[in-house]
Amino acid sequence: MSVVDKIKVSIAGGSGYAGGELLRLLLSHPRAEIAQVSSESQTGKFVFKAHPNLRKRAQLQFSSLKELRPCDVLFLCLPHGQAMERIAEFKKIAPRIVDLSADFRLNRESEYREWYHKPHACPELLRDFVYGIPELHREEMKGARFVSSAGCNATVTILGLYPFFKRRLLETDKTVVEVKVGSSEGGNSPGPSSHHPERSGAVRSFMPTGHRHCAEIIQELGSGEPIQVHFSVTSIEMVRGALATCHLFLKEKLEEKDIWKLYREAYGKEPFIRIVKESDGIHRYPEPKLLAGTNYCDIGFVKDEKSNRVVVISAIDNLVKGAAGQAVQAFNIMHGFDETEGLEFPGLHPI
Amino acid sequence: MSVVDKIKVSIAGGSGYAGGELLRLLLSHPRAEIAQVSSESQTGKFVFKAHPNLRKRAQLQFSSLKELRPCDVLFLCLPHGQAMERIAEFKKIAPRIVDLSADFRLNRESEYREWYHKPHACPELLRDFVYGIPELHREEMKGARFVSSAGCNATVTILGLYPFFKRRLLETDKTVVEVKVGSSEGGNSPGPSSHHPERSGAVRSFMPTGHRHCAEIIQELGSGEPIQVHFSVTSIEMVRGALATCHLFLKEKLEEKDIWKLYREAYGKEPFIRIVKESDGIHRYPEPKLLAGTNYCDIGFVKDEKSNRVVVISAIDNLVKGAAGQAVQAFNIMHGFDETEGLEFPGLHPI
Amino acid sequence: MSVVDKIKVSIAGGSGYAGGELLRLLLSHPRAEIAQVSSESQTGKFVFKAHPNLRKRAQLQFSSLKELRPCDVLFLCLPHGQAMERIAEFKKIAPRIVDLSADFRLNRESEYREWYHKPHACPELLRDFVYGIPELHREEMKGARFVSSAGCNATVTILGLYPFFKRRLLETDKTVVEVKVGSSEGGNSPGPSSHHPERSGAVRSFMPTGHRHCAEIIQELGSGEPIQVHFSVTSIEMVRGALATCHLFLKEKLEEKDIWKLYREAYGKEPFIRIVKESDGIHRYPEPKLLAGTNYCDIGFVKDEKSNRVVVISAIDNLVKGAAGQAVQAFNIMHGFDETEGLEFPGLHPI
Amino acid sequence: MSVVDKIKVSIAGGSGYAGGELLRLLLSHPRAEIAQVSSESQTGKFVFKAHPNLRKRAQLQFSSLKELRPCDVLFLCLPHGQAMERIAEFKKIAPRIVDLSADFRLNRESEYREWYHKPHACPELLRDFVYGIPELHREEMKGARFVSSAGCNATVTILGLYPFFKRRLLETDKTVVEVKVGSSEGGNSPGPSSHHPERSGAVRSFMPTGHRHCAEIIQELGSGEPIQVHFSVTSIEMVRGALATCHLFLKEKLEEKDIWKLYREAYGKEPFIRIVKESDGIHRYPEPKLLAGTNYCDIGFVKDEKSNRVVVISAIDNLVKGAAGQAVQAFNIMHGFDETEGLEFPGLHPI
Repeated sequence: MSVVDKIKVSIAGGSGYAGGELLRLLLSHPRAEIAQVSSESQTGKFVFKAHPNLRKRAQLQFSSLKELRPCDVLFLCLPHGQAMERIAEFKKIAPRIVDLSADFRLNRESEYREWYHKPHACPELLRDFVYGIPELHREEMKGARFVSSAGCNATVTILGLYPFFKRRLLETDKTVVEVKVGSSEGGNSPGPSSHHPERSGAVRSFMPTGHRHCAEIIQELGSGEPIQVHFSVTSIEMVRGALATCHLFLKEKLEEKDIWKLYREAYGKEPFIRIVKESDGIHRYPEPKLLAGTNYCDIGFVKDEKSNRVVVISAIDNLVKGAAGQAVQAFNIMHGFDETEGLEFPGLHPI
Repeated sequence: MSVVDKIKVSIAGGSGYAGGELLRLLLSHPRAEIAQVSSESQTGKFVFKAHPNLRKRAQLQFSSLKELRPCDVLFLCLPHGQAMERIAEFKKIAPRIVDLSADFRLNRESEYREWYHKPHACPELLRDFVYGIPELHREEMKGARFVSSAGCNATVTILGLYPFFKRRLLETDKTVVEVKVGSSEGGNSPGPSSHHPERSGAVRSFMPTGHRHCAEIIQELGSGEPIQVHFSVTSIEMVRGALATCHLFLKEKLEEKDIWKLYREAYGKEPFIRIVKESDGIHRYPEPKLLAGTNYCDIGFVKDEKSNRVVVISAIDNLVKGAAGQAVQAFNIMHGFDETEGLEFPGLHPI
Repeated sequence: MSVVDKIKVSIAGGSGYAGGELLRLLLSHPRAEIAQVSSESQTGKFVFKAHPNLRKRAQLQFSSLKELRPCDVLFLCLPHGQAMERIAEFKKIAPRIVDLSADFRLNRESEYREWYHKPHACPELLRDFVYGIPELHREEMKGARFVSSAGCNATVTILGLYPFFKRRLLETDKTVVEVKVGSSEGGNSPGPSSHHPERSGAVRSFMPTGHRHCAEIIQELGSGEPIQVHFSVTSIEMVRGALATCHLFLKEKLEEKDIWKLYREAYGKEPFIRIVKESDGIHRYPEPKLLAGTNYCDIGFVKDEKSNRVVVISAIDNLVKGAAGQAVQAFNIMHGFDETEGLEFPGLHPI
Repeated sequence: MSVVDKIKVSIAGGSGYAGGELLRLLLSHPRAEIAQVSSESQTGKFVFKAHPNLRKRAQLQFSSLKELRPCDVLFLCLPHGQAMERIAEFKKIAPRIVDLSADFRLNRESEYREWYHKPHACPELLRDFVYGIPELHREEMKGARFVSSAGCNATVTILGLYPFFKRRLLETDKTVVEVKVGSSEGGNSPGPSSHHPERSGAVRSFMPTGHRHCAEIIQELGSGEPIQVHFSVTSIEMVRGALATCHLFLKEKLEEKDIWKLYREAYGKEPFIRIVKESDGIHRYPEPKLLAGTNYCDIGFVKDEKSNRVVVISAIDNLVKGAAGQAVQAFNIMHGFDETEGLEFPGLHPI
């Protein structure tokens, strides 16, 4: 490794799954140096006790939140609701903050109240956080102080649909999105619904309606126009990964070649978006298991020959592009680094 | 077992998965006696070589098709396209026929051509077959000579949606249905897409558009009115089971209690339909794994508070209610037996 | 169903997995009538809330233990340690008791102390309980008052090895047994080790040494002679099922045909034991998934051509032949019923 | 990346699973430059068609074998039997060869005949190949021309047992090893036994006796002394990964602390071996899923308190430490590079 100045980063709340992935990515990031990682429940323990893949890779021990010292960038991986309660103290610790919780994703407090059913603890900061999807907010991220990583289900949906909504190609009230998710979305706390004999092989209609990520989707895709996204989440047999099957209805006739063009224009230069649409073989559309550990969002589509429907299929690793990887990509953009730094893992096959 | 006259049944094409399930069900059916089971590839072998669960349960050996002798009821489990080619000879063997293939599901040849992309070999018989969903066609089945079992994905979708369409409660062009299916739907022939390292853990957009079962769905739900059902099938990590997530849009306002009433009126007396909608616990909606081996179709629903959408969730075992069990239920109705004869298995938990 | 006198049975502790299977089996047992089922945590709730497969099949509600009324047979499915504490009161309720816990499996208190690391609460009754494997203790069960169902891992091991030990064919200190088990063995209480993201796909060396079922195995196989069974249990990706791979070392030369004969002599008339040993096809040896829901123990074997080792492979459904089914088989024997009553389910394929 | 001379490597037979992993590792190896990759079945196609994880990562197209041009190192990932047939031509192409097939693993032709049941095509070269486990043959590898990567099941077994055998601590005729393997071991050709409905959830006694990797194990562990390793392989629900459960019987008394010391002495400086033995938490012993994509071999152990048995548990990713990663580690040693070059991926959690 050449001699470069490293950015000193700390992680608040690093014993969960997103925190573990962030640790994995930052440990091999050539421009980052991890100063501290906090965990209230595991203070003093080695991080590899919580993240067994990091055995022999990290000698870090968990600190408590109150032991966190000043650093360059603070990543927040705390349970939802804690970041907004403590944001004042975190701002004193670090000039730059990337929050992976849901607290600062919505721009307007009214939206937060509607979907989270409580008041926001720090509404005046909502507008200061850049919504963390680089493909939509890259320019704002450059030099930003605060970034709020997007929800995993929101990320996979927004990235799949953005080109259509941006160009206002759709009937605005008919979009139906169903996201298939794995068990890691529920975090690392066990409970009856995550008990293996019950969760294994399940096809569980987790949130047929009312999923909070819908608020982010409407915020990001609507851009001034009132839209509806009919959104459902189903848990399936999978640990990592999210796949959105999106049913869009075109206002005007588009051929598949037009849709190819649409995506190329939107994402042609994106390092982490791949269009996956093959006419033969067994990997014709995005497949979340191929993305485990990677920062890719793979997107495919089909035009229904019998109607004006387009089916868009997008896939991510919910813990990487949907959480820790998205945060590292933002970190890279904030500092002017190559966006792919620390995010080079290509994924495994077979898996 | 009391002394009763048994119906002599044979199975044409009994070495596949649906044939195996039919064997399992008929072997313990108190009113059926299995005379012969055919398989061209396994002629002469014991049936438990193909269906290892029947070891020590059946001493039958596979015959060839041409060895089939006259019987009371002939079940056809042949690959799609063969039943319509050989139906004349099968009619000579048995006065009653239950076909589990796709050949006689559609009423009109024009529809067959459109979805199967070839002419039908015996269009004059299409109207003679009763479409095999008992909940819709019970009266026609009584005493019927020919029944065509419905497609598994069509069955789970039609049963979930029928009460809404029958009462014309929906916006007719907006219904979106996504069915999640297991690998047994693809039959027992190995290939690259069913190779375990590739298929395991897959979330594969198998038929985002153009699935043939859509033709049956429109035929059965439309009943005179032109309707659209936007239909997609996704393969997930599962061997048995199908779950349909259906997004319906109401023409008029309905409360959840109205929908409860709708389903009770439609299915209150149905022995194999259960409404599953709990407000607590981990089994709030239908779960296909709980139905493995059973003839149930479980149906649940949610009304979206923010729109006129209703999400209907229905689940079956694709090889039972979606194939062999549905056929046995039809067999029971055709002969005036109790519909649950031979179909009493309640399913396993945990599984 | 013909008119027969039914045995009135109750279940103490019926909200767990073994209790649920016992309910499933007894509900369709032609000679049993379920009077009460207790659960302290779910008193008053319908049993289908705990056992969702029984929806529409049972209108029973859970009682509390203290509400249990006199009955003909009481099945105990309580957590280990409770049966021996309360056995006096249970004896007042029912003349016959089948205990599915570990409390009365060992004949000698010294063994109990050694393996369970505490004194037994009721050692004077240890000799009154018949060890519940019918294939070894059928005669004692006929008319017995008390039966203690064997441990699941003990059952699968003992049934595989019994013919060799009975005939003293083995080097007594070299037997190595590894049992592969599913997650349902751990019961229905969630915890960190059963959390789906951690348990899914695991190959976890659960008990490499020191598993308590080893005490039962030595007791049942030793019969007077000191023996050693080197026993390990590994948890794998599976919900139901247990498969024992047993490495035996022959004192004298035996050919495979001799071993066939040995098993035929031992088990030729057993209704629930099948020898599975095929020279072609994909189901050459026992496969636990094929046994889900059944009371079978499938056994296969191979003689190592390069040594005196025999590999014996045996498989069961841990919740059926390893628990509830074994208990129902004992119930049938105790009452002189056909042993297969209520245990006819043949299992599913594919699954 | 600093400017360094890169080694020009080619891969013969790169469309299979081991070839795909080799491509993944070499594409990000700072000292390797991939010149060509051959595949007879996919000549002319882009490598990402066979290895979908490499989409957007490699623009290579498959060549045919006969198109391979001279290079510095040739990796052979051909089906067993082809390397020994074509080794003369391969030696003309490259001064250094790493063979991932089974052809050159055994030192003596007699052993090859005994276990592979046919004569070896090129026995005179058997002694020229270094057996590819670096932990045993590092010194011979430095500057070696020919290396033969070890079998995956042999690798995981040998690494677990080597310290005991090297020190002659065991009763030599009693060692029992059972390896649990995933479906990727069978390669990428579909067949009845890999068909998902059959293979899913299987616990298949794949090779209870007679597995060819046993020959390598005896060769490497025996070192002059006649030993027996009773070896069985069971396929379980898993795609990647191998876990060996090894039952060893000590000649003399050893405490657990002595065994700790034994392993520390043998492997204390090894970059890819980790001793995993925790007294609490859920990750107490090696777990293959945590190793997916990594070059680690994790090893744990337990001393049985009731006998002289030690249970050693070792785990690898069969496609990395058991194939492609082992080959890259050898490549690094052959060229004097840091052994961890290109092998830094730490694995994922949860997965």
